[in-house]
Amino acid sequence: MIQIYTGNGKGKTTSSIGLIIRALGHNWRVCLIQFMKNDWSYGEITTLSKLPGLDIFKFGTKEFVDPQNPAKIDYQEAEAGWAKSKEVLHSGKYQLVVLDEINVAVFMELLSVEKQLELCELAGKAELVMTGRYANEQAIARADLVTEMHEQKHYFNQGVASREGIEF
Amino acid sequence: MIQIYTGNGKGKTTSSIGLIIRALGHNWRVCLIQFMKNDWSYGEITTLSKLPGLDIFKFGTKEFVDPQNPAKIDYQEAEAGWAKSKEVLHSGKYQLVVLDEINVAVFMELLSVEKQLELCELAGKAELVMTGRYANEQAIARADLVTEMHEQKHYFNQGVASREGIEF
Repeated sequence: MIQIYTGNGKGKTTSSIGLIIRALGHNWRVCLIQFMKNDWSYGEITTLSKLPGLDIFKFGTKEFVDPQNPAKIDYQEAEAGWAKSKEVLHSGKYQLVVLDEINVAVFMELLSVEKQLELCELAGKAELVMTGRYANEQAIARADLVTEMHEQKHYFNQGVASREGIEF
Repeated sequence: MIQIYTGNGKGKTTSSIGLIIRALGHNWRVCLIQFMKNDWSYGEITTLSKLPGLDIFKFGTKEFVDPQNPAKIDYQEAEAGWAKSKEVLHSGKYQLVVLDEINVAVFMELLSVEKQLELCELAGKAELVMTGRYANEQAIARADLVTEMHEQKHYFNQGVASREGIEF
């Protein structure tokens, strides 16, 4: 099955982490591939990297991607993340594969939607979870489950900054 | 701050678990209190119960609550969960407290919304996260962040049953 978590609300990456924790509790083999987030200081990565049964691969840089003008390295990293995703899905080794923020990489045209759809075709029996805002309509059409995280209220709009422990 | 995850889409409990995993990565003291879910076979509980820094308390029974006619034990368990939540928040021991499914307990009138609001007042410096469908409007008004998980598409509607590793 293919699941997508998208929308402007808080809870997309965290829900994929919750799915990982749940699957590990049933001794599933799990792989997390993060796009556009190559920063190991995220709290979730600190905890997750200690758990057996989970492999983590990260792509992107520590810098935010400029949506108007992505750097060459941003394209290269997205491509490398895609190649790793392909390899991981093709291996058949994992029961759950999470592609975190892949929707944003496609939205920013660092990756084509065709490449995202190719990964969907490779999922086979694995549960494939794709997160990030702005999920492409074609990916949504292909998915079996789509949750839109809708922001009803957010403290960011009251000027509260991103907080360690809560946002990263 | 007070966060609510509600709505009919998948991802409410899992996102609170992701928040727990993130907070533990920063060595926060975390408490998870589950309402209406006294079943230790959930995959996430198996994984979470091995993590240091997290205390878990569960209330409810293994049976689903009949919304038309809750049993006496359902009221007693909800009340016990509320008393534990009060104690935990009052202790000031935790930086993150998750009250999983409390919104449903209030919706089913196992707990009054006044009692839920009382817990909000006790949160103090702790981050308080409350999950479950049908969040009460008064709780939403009190919260700093509200995400509505909106179901765009769900395989349950194609007759797929709840799956071990994914739904529990």
